[in-house]
Amino acid sequence: MEPVLAVGSVALDTIRNPFGEVTRVAGGSAAYFSVAASFFTDVRLVAVVGEDFGDRGTSLFEGRRIDLSGLQTVPGETFRWKGEYGFDLNTRETIYTKLNVFEQFRPVIPEAYRSSPFVFLGNIHPRLQLEVLDQVTSPRLVAADTMDFWIEGTPDELREVLRRVDVLIINDAEARQLSNEANLAKAARILRAMGPGTVVIKRGENGVLMTCSGDGEFFAAPAMPLEEVFDPTGAGDTFAGGFVGSLAACGEINDAALARAIIYGSTIASFAVEDFSLDRLLRLTQDEIGKRFDYFKRLTYFD
Amino acid sequence: MEPVLAVGSVALDTIRNPFGEVTRVAGGSAAYFSVAASFFTDVRLVAVVGEDFGDRGTSLFEGRRIDLSGLQTVPGETFRWKGEYGFDLNTRETIYTKLNVFEQFRPVIPEAYRSSPFVFLGNIHPRLQLEVLDQVTSPRLVAADTMDFWIEGTPDELREVLRRVDVLIINDAEARQLSNEANLAKAARILRAMGPGTVVIKRGENGVLMTCSGDGEFFAAPAMPLEEVFDPTGAGDTFAGGFVGSLAACGEINDAALARAIIYGSTIASFAVEDFSLDRLLRLTQDEIGKRFDYFKRLTYFD
Repeated sequence: MEPVLAVGSVALDTIRNPFGEVTRVAGGSAAYFSVAASFFTDVRLVAVVGEDFGDRGTSLFEGRRIDLSGLQTVPGETFRWKGEYGFDLNTRETIYTKLNVFEQFRPVIPEAYRSSPFVFLGNIHPRLQLEVLDQVTSPRLVAADTMDFWIEGTPDELREVLRRVDVLIINDAEARQLSNEANLAKAARILRAMGPGTVVIKRGENGVLMTCSGDGEFFAAPAMPLEEVFDPTGAGDTFAGGFVGSLAACGEINDAALARAIIYGSTIASFAVEDFSLDRLLRLTQDEIGKRFDYFKRLTYFD
Repeated sequence: MEPVLAVGSVALDTIRNPFGEVTRVAGGSAAYFSVAASFFTDVRLVAVVGEDFGDRGTSLFEGRRIDLSGLQTVPGETFRWKGEYGFDLNTRETIYTKLNVFEQFRPVIPEAYRSSPFVFLGNIHPRLQLEVLDQVTSPRLVAADTMDFWIEGTPDELREVLRRVDVLIINDAEARQLSNEANLAKAARILRAMGPGTVVIKRGENGVLMTCSGDGEFFAAPAMPLEEVFDPTGAGDTFAGGFVGSLAACGEINDAALARAIIYGSTIASFAVEDFSLDRLLRLTQDEIGKRFDYFKRLTYFD
């Protein structure tokens, strides 16, 4: 079991959906990622929050395998996001994004973290992702996420990131946009040619498609058939946390470990959507993860 | 290995897509189904064509395990359909549907076919599907397809069909429409409560979701990641042919056989879309099916 360094956003989210509304609850890519990954291995969280995040916020991470010495608290307000979901949860409108203290964020990796063997670059400015890469010393595996905003706004810096990471974790719309190719199998290969040896395309309720290994072999998993999806916020980062966390716990990096990691990521993401914010993850048990992983086997097994 | 009775349409299709156009090529639910199923078992085809279908048309079925004694040729023109696909093949517009000889079609099941242990009711008027059921004697398994036209137009007769079939094979949009439920897992359970013990939801490039067995356990499979899709016409009926055909070849009907049948259906459908009309299926070999089935295992396997 090896530790994971996670760099990204920690936010206060306001979410409205057909089931209700919550105000200033914990969110952000690094928050979902860290809580999810901490079910598998030790996590070193590097992020910034404002003074409003408070002890109540940081207490969410306590009692877990999450080292908070890289979590800076600075004067001002925490990154805030407000989103509203449509009636079937498949459409989401961003009401506002207030970067606040995140605007001046420069990731400073504590000395003790720099040799972290596994690194996750959450969805932040590619320049900041590169700054993290400049500070770490030969990690075994670097995984990165990104989004449409950076694909459009900072393509050159994003290309530089892609040349330096091992795993790109991206959703289907972003994969199509970044590759300029509608067919996902082709898009995966195009993205792979940009640098990352492994490309993981998150397809939401349509599962996950991964291309990896020497010749770009595919692995595909359906999503868990969920009868009740409550709040999809953070599902992608939770997936990434389960994926990278389980790889770090396993220690080996090969096609079998990557396939298993896809299923652990899908498993833990299937819990995250059952409640608002981190709520379901915070009351999740190892036993529940194990049982749902086994259910995934029954769900997909044939001979 | 047991024979399958297939009742449905045989048509002359005109298809335009970004890659070209073909005029009056063989199509129809029973045509795709029969050719696909004949790779696995003996097929008894009951359908009607006009005099324009000709020897060239029927020759497509010859040299295969397809018994044509139930294929009526009557005066007039064969059922004709013309469709046009959008640039990414995900949208399809029906230019015309001319029922022609199909308008007066009444399925007459030859005496020798009436004890067929496996029965497939292609997407035809539910009243005709019921007429078929009235003529067969205690089949082991009846599978049926339907479409939006019958869901809207003849809901009562369709409900009667559902009460009398074992397997409903339906696409995702139709599953949502028939169940009046957007969530597919819930929709599957609602459809199951209408009668069929097994519900198979075809999701196109998003794979297949099945619910079966006593307590409605799910089986889910991703679609083969295809880099080149040429013509999706008939993919659903081809899937059904592989599904029912492989079940009939296996002889056993249980959860394991149903899961394997989903993969055989997906496998053969993944070939059908590689060329216009039945063209790819007509030059397909058992060896190719076996290899792609094995590829499906590698594609989805984890431990």
